[in-house]
Amino acid sequence: MTFVLAPDSFKESMTAKEVCIAMERGLRRVFPEARYIHVPMADGGEGTTRSLVDATCGALHSVTVTGPSGSPAEAIFGISGDGTVGIIEMSSASGIQHTAPDNRNPLLATSYGTGQLVTACLNKGVRQIILGLGGSATNDGGAGMAEALGVRFYGPHHRQLSRGGGALGDLQRIDISGLDPRLNGVKFLVACDVTSPLCGDQGASVVFGPQKGATPPMVRQLDDNLAHYAQIICQQLGKNVADQPGAGAAGGLGAGLLAFTDCELKNGVEIILSYTRLKQHLTGADYCFTGEGRMDAQTMFGKTPLGVARLAKAAGVPVIAIAGSMGSGTEPLYRQGIDAIFGIIPHADSIDNLLRSGTVNIQRTCENVGRLLRLHLS
Amino acid sequence: MTFVLAPDSFKESMTAKEVCIAMERGLRRVFPEARYIHVPMADGGEGTTRSLVDATCGALHSVTVTGPSGSPAEAIFGISGDGTVGIIEMSSASGIQHTAPDNRNPLLATSYGTGQLVTACLNKGVRQIILGLGGSATNDGGAGMAEALGVRFYGPHHRQLSRGGGALGDLQRIDISGLDPRLNGVKFLVACDVTSPLCGDQGASVVFGPQKGATPPMVRQLDDNLAHYAQIICQQLGKNVADQPGAGAAGGLGAGLLAFTDCELKNGVEIILSYTRLKQHLTGADYCFTGEGRMDAQTMFGKTPLGVARLAKAAGVPVIAIAGSMGSGTEPLYRQGIDAIFGIIPHADSIDNLLRSGTVNIQRTCENVGRLLRLHLS
Repeated sequence: MTFVLAPDSFKESMTAKEVCIAMERGLRRVFPEARYIHVPMADGGEGTTRSLVDATCGALHSVTVTGPSGSPAEAIFGISGDGTVGIIEMSSASGIQHTAPDNRNPLLATSYGTGQLVTACLNKGVRQIILGLGGSATNDGGAGMAEALGVRFYGPHHRQLSRGGGALGDLQRIDISGLDPRLNGVKFLVACDVTSPLCGDQGASVVFGPQKGATPPMVRQLDDNLAHYAQIICQQLGKNVADQPGAGAAGGLGAGLLAFTDCELKNGVEIILSYTRLKQHLTGADYCFTGEGRMDAQTMFGKTPLGVARLAKAAGVPVIAIAGSMGSGTEPLYRQGIDAIFGIIPHADSIDNLLRSGTVNIQRTCENVGRLLRLHLS
Repeated sequence: MTFVLAPDSFKESMTAKEVCIAMERGLRRVFPEARYIHVPMADGGEGTTRSLVDATCGALHSVTVTGPSGSPAEAIFGISGDGTVGIIEMSSASGIQHTAPDNRNPLLATSYGTGQLVTACLNKGVRQIILGLGGSATNDGGAGMAEALGVRFYGPHHRQLSRGGGALGDLQRIDISGLDPRLNGVKFLVACDVTSPLCGDQGASVVFGPQKGATPPMVRQLDDNLAHYAQIICQQLGKNVADQPGAGAAGGLGAGLLAFTDCELKNGVEIILSYTRLKQHLTGADYCFTGEGRMDAQTMFGKTPLGVARLAKAAGVPVIAIAGSMGSGTEPLYRQGIDAIFGIIPHADSIDNLLRSGTVNIQRTCENVGRLLRLHLS
């Protein structure tokens, strides 16, 4: 009997690896002799670094970088167990959580720290970097990241631009001669909303600017600046990033990656699925367990359980989802390969207590699911 | 495919019948062609009348009686579908909920209304009465009930005693010549804690007196009075109720029933199980679903799911329990025949909201359990 355990993290409660352990502990009470394969998952967002490090027996590293507002920030990155892959969440260096709501200014916020995380990975000798976007405080088109990697941005009178999306309107010249040569031969797999355009009504500034602190006049300025930035990139580097879907992800960081690195923008879950070799693990498995902290109508849109379920369904493996909390609108998931969904909350309680008791609640729920599965084996 | 649905009520949320309907609705989404047998259960406590009326397609009746403090109270009783069985919860007539906490006085509280409910059943021509004790406001040894049925209690100077356990110390003579002759040939099945003694440290007054408003001196008086009452019963009626286990149930109502009726004191669940013919329904069934509003360590002590599970286990039918809320200590239930237990709470919420959303939550949980069961049928 083989169980593949492929949950996402339960946000604010457990890492994906911790969820795997709790699932196994519950199931092992019913199937003590079974084989349990842990495949901690993620969707490119929060928890991706930790899950992939756990999935590969890799290591987490910590480094001090320049945060989005210029203050130092402690950021983490991961290196896979075989040493060839760096794993970064841009929000760890340049996320909105680094700046208090009152101090948020997307005209000034910089993705410089994300570039420093890339450098830290290059220092470890990686050949590939998995980079999760999302949660950014920045709207600088990835210019800050590029600067940290050696690119220089000049305005009038050959003066270097100051950092942040507000300065990009003055951009006249991009000098890539100082770009870190180690980037050659390093492939970026970028987990993001692959449809997000750089500019316009659906663009980075209009859609996400306000939640980063942009007033309506700022939104207009940032949008104009990113359009100008893309134009200069097109003229001087010969790359048309303006029209590429995904360029607008993370305040235009997608555009910066397209301009200055060898990258592929993909749905986060797909990256993680292929990276963790879930498909291979599913071969010959009897059951696959997945889950996440909250399952609801949003789970249909690229979240982990759906991606896991599609692969498992293709492999003919039944999928059972365990949800920390269940919202409405989960019914369509059944048609996507999830066979059953179980919540874990035992009784009415505060959210804080429920977040703290996730481990025992997953364990108990999985034990009972296991007990049902066993009914038909005896 | 046959499902037997035998839940208790979910207190403050759903009657047992409503739970059956929600269970069927969920399972029917997975097994539209299956046969569903509803056996609404109870444990002799709150909800017993309603469940047995539903189980027998009987009728609920309402009658105005004398409440425990002497004020009128609206009480209900049930008559089984075939008209032969009356179903009473003593708390409906003489329960603690009829008196505000400030007005509770177990010296005065009377079980008279319970006797009126018995009379109401006799008026319908029943041959058997199922009487659930529990939740009483009274400590009168069932003297009030007996008075309503025609018994007379006299003190000094041939004066009739006033009602309530406080007057029983003056009891000198019991006259049963006026006892309703229709009680002959009517069998009482009394659902109660069958171990509760009438007097002493584990007796009705000491254990339950305080929660009915008795001060320590009152407790001593009530305990002495019940002992005196039992002595008079023994001397004049030749029945030794003092030493019978269960005599102390419901403030000594057990003793009154033993003295004045043809009764059998039994565990409530056992009465309901035999009455609903659950064993027969389980013959040939594929699965049995049970459950109650809260399952925890207490469920081991005579509660419905345990009784259902034992019968089902003996019949070789797997048992799945659905719990409105789960406390700790449910593990021993597995050894008693419950194969798996699932909570129904989807997300952190107020108790009020959770009580209101019980139907959809049971439905969703049973659908997912059904989906798991189906895995092995395809």
